[in-house]
Amino acid sequence: MIFTISNIRKFYTQSVLFKNAIQLTKDRFTNLKRGSYAVLNANDVDYFKKLLGDNNFITGEEVKAYNEDWLKTVCGSSKYVLKPKTTEQVSEILKYCYKHNIAVSIQGGNTGLVGGSVPVFDEVILSTSAMNKIISFNKLSGVLVCEAGCVLENLMNYVQNKGFIMPFDLGAKGTCQIGGNLATNAGGLRLIKYGSLQGSVLGLQAVLADGQVLDCLSTLKKDNTGYHLKHMFIGSEGTLGVITKVAIHCPNAPKFVNAAFIGLKSFDKVLSFFSLIRKEFGGSLSSFELMDSVAITSVQKNIGLKCPIDDNLEFYVLLELSADNNFINTSIQEVLEQALAEEIIVDATVGDQPSVVQNIWKIRENIPESFLRYGYVYKYDITLPHELFYEIVPEIRKRLEILDVKAVSGYGHLGDGNLHLNVATNEHSDKIVSAIEPYVYEWTTKCKGSISAEHGIGLLKTKYLKYSKSDIEVDLMKKLKNTFDPKKILNPYKIFPQDDIN
Amino acid sequence: MIFTISNIRKFYTQSVLFKNAIQLTKDRFTNLKRGSYAVLNANDVDYFKKLLGDNNFITGEEVKAYNEDWLKTVCGSSKYVLKPKTTEQVSEILKYCYKHNIAVSIQGGNTGLVGGSVPVFDEVILSTSAMNKIISFNKLSGVLVCEAGCVLENLMNYVQNKGFIMPFDLGAKGTCQIGGNLATNAGGLRLIKYGSLQGSVLGLQAVLADGQVLDCLSTLKKDNTGYHLKHMFIGSEGTLGVITKVAIHCPNAPKFVNAAFIGLKSFDKVLSFFSLIRKEFGGSLSSFELMDSVAITSVQKNIGLKCPIDDNLEFYVLLELSADNNFINTSIQEVLEQALAEEIIVDATVGDQPSVVQNIWKIRENIPESFLRYGYVYKYDITLPHELFYEIVPEIRKRLEILDVKAVSGYGHLGDGNLHLNVATNEHSDKIVSAIEPYVYEWTTKCKGSISAEHGIGLLKTKYLKYSKSDIEVDLMKKLKNTFDPKKILNPYKIFPQDDIN
Repeated sequence: MIFTISNIRKFYTQSVLFKNAIQLTKDRFTNLKRGSYAVLNANDVDYFKKLLGDNNFITGEEVKAYNEDWLKTVCGSSKYVLKPKTTEQVSEILKYCYKHNIAVSIQGGNTGLVGGSVPVFDEVILSTSAMNKIISFNKLSGVLVCEAGCVLENLMNYVQNKGFIMPFDLGAKGTCQIGGNLATNAGGLRLIKYGSLQGSVLGLQAVLADGQVLDCLSTLKKDNTGYHLKHMFIGSEGTLGVITKVAIHCPNAPKFVNAAFIGLKSFDKVLSFFSLIRKEFGGSLSSFELMDSVAITSVQKNIGLKCPIDDNLEFYVLLELSADNNFINTSIQEVLEQALAEEIIVDATVGDQPSVVQNIWKIRENIPESFLRYGYVYKYDITLPHELFYEIVPEIRKRLEILDVKAVSGYGHLGDGNLHLNVATNEHSDKIVSAIEPYVYEWTTKCKGSISAEHGIGLLKTKYLKYSKSDIEVDLMKKLKNTFDPKKILNPYKIFPQDDIN
Repeated sequence: MIFTISNIRKFYTQSVLFKNAIQLTKDRFTNLKRGSYAVLNANDVDYFKKLLGDNNFITGEEVKAYNEDWLKTVCGSSKYVLKPKTTEQVSEILKYCYKHNIAVSIQGGNTGLVGGSVPVFDEVILSTSAMNKIISFNKLSGVLVCEAGCVLENLMNYVQNKGFIMPFDLGAKGTCQIGGNLATNAGGLRLIKYGSLQGSVLGLQAVLADGQVLDCLSTLKKDNTGYHLKHMFIGSEGTLGVITKVAIHCPNAPKFVNAAFIGLKSFDKVLSFFSLIRKEFGGSLSSFELMDSVAITSVQKNIGLKCPIDDNLEFYVLLELSADNNFINTSIQEVLEQALAEEIIVDATVGDQPSVVQNIWKIRENIPESFLRYGYVYKYDITLPHELFYEIVPEIRKRLEILDVKAVSGYGHLGDGNLHLNVATNEHSDKIVSAIEPYVYEWTTKCKGSISAEHGIGLLKTKYLKYSKSDIEVDLMKKLKNTFDPKKILNPYKIFPQDDIN
């Protein structure tokens, strides 16, 4: 059994502190212009209603929830939500939209964090929610085939009952959908062990902008017959086609899981410890999460959780191992003792009982919420080389010294080089934003990092795309967009800065 | 230490039995027409000579080796080989070729098995051999960055000295180059454990048809900023760009390896055994190779190797486990005893000493050569669902019953669903070909398999592409080819049937 950070998203959405965020975001996008797409007329509405039936054609007050993103930072003004039940219906919808030049916003579980999952203007919303059937699971190959609208947690439960696990896990698992996971190339908590979706996904079915159904729903691990088209859709955030079915490889569930909470004196020691753990446990390492002292203080003070070890250290690591054999339980003890003796680490606790593992995870899980309790949080999700992973944090601290800031913290998936940089304040301030941005992105580029590790570009990061992609890359991306969707009806205003694409 | 099938290719190339193959292949391609590309004139030759220097501009007798493929089944008539030393030189070459409409055949180690690595007519050959520098290796992240012309075995040795392994291994490792491995999405022996190159490759640099340098040489495990362009080059067989640099994730080397040789009574038992092994050893399973009785008989009779267990059984499995802890050595004993008691398997031997492991692998390694000793071998490399993995073998046996055939055998990477179907005869016969083809491809399509598991399409399988790709897929592939290489100067006549692309 693997324990996950399941509560984070709930806190976000409940937080009243985001109440002004929609206005803030709108201000930031005043320069966006609506594309020259058709406005839906009565004929169009009749067509969609007839195609889908009344229950799957949503209009009126109910549309509001589909217009707003999860963080309530972006809000579109679409009037209609289409909920096709089959690939054929998706095909009919797109064929019609393509012909009539109707812009389409594609939505899965609407849990994205960069405004990619909601309309910007009045795009019609195509929700994959009604396509939620599991098609097959093969116990020999471990391959699951399902429709795009299946909720990740349902799939996790389904394969767990058969002795398998999904190759990835996310905080949003209770709501996010597998189609959206693919469209955003979701990373999450198991990437260090099971790799990315580009490796796990064996096949997919996608409907192209003009309604053609592209069937690459292979369940094979090896297939070298022509271009590997499926990879174009993974991570393209719904701008190249609508993913309707997915075939994904599920590993066998590990039989033993343990977790350790470790205190260290410096970031150098963290890297030495990471190196040691990779050497000793290679393929059994399923999480290596870093937390700095600011994060631990915040969790203790704002949430009331107690740090299980010495709470006066600079850095903490949550280590999770999972394997088919309980050797990890004895080995981890030995390795931690050795690391203590060699003064790589200062303090540690370890356990394999579910309650112990859960309590250790709770501290890591509650960091984002603990910062929200200060008032407002500026959040950055970047990838950096391991050696430079933490340097940006004291840098930002220095830049914000004279401003009214409650906490500047770095934590995240060190194993994957993925840093969450959080700056907590009482309330939103443009002054603070301009002290951080674009500085943090320039820094990231200088370190050859990624300005969006797992969240994607969506709408909110379009103007920062240039920090991670060269002109030649963006140019080729535009050519591909034009090849797949020449009328640009799919998820307009996303990924590309508006000046670039129109 | 992992033991590999390093000798297979050597046998192929030495075999005099292939002496007539070039003629056979030429006969099969009499309908191919040379595209309307420029013929190199004195100015062109001067330009390339000046750009590269005399040593890296090959002409005359020496070109012959670059015109012929490894199996000596395809032979081009190029007069020139260009061996750029830098990305900039590749860029200058392609800029020039693009401008002057000169067709280019891209070649790595020239170990491909489908005629993809050699020119078809007089295309100028761009060899990546002179770009063979290792750029960096990061011990913390396990990321290797190197030039495209690095020979796989050199990279394996390099990272092994640092406690890591390459995430894949091939019979051709002593000659094949990493750039060609990516271009053909090489699979090989470790795929069941470490996944495909689409998952392992973190970044690449490629020169586009017009000479532009596309730098996606990220070393990051997470990067969600726009389209994942690198995946278009992996497996596109040099038709979309020339890969010049590679960043690849190397796992930590496992500390313990063992191998078992197991005999079973029926294919149903093989599947039960596979299921059991996956359940017990999940992430430690590094090979699960099936061999039928025909293969074992052939190895015993033609090579003189002794089967280490009862040699009167229907099926044999080579199982390899690798892990960070020696639990696999005790566990495998227990699991095999249990499987014997439950009559899932009939006989088994297992060992962890390098010499034992090597001897077990030797049997599997020598199967292809043993069939060659009969005279001529028809070889098919297909992927099938596990349940249907072996059914085609008796089917083909039945079809060839009245013809003069020495052996019909199925063996291969059952773990990945990858079957090698071999038909051995005294000599080549069109009658036998037409009894097998296109039947074997039709069968594969019916089973939703792949007509080329790891070898690609190249030149030799272009006419069978349709068996694994729908019209819509081929149409999109053509559009992509047109987007990346509108003049179609890169590796012409490959992947697409000629009628399709011109």
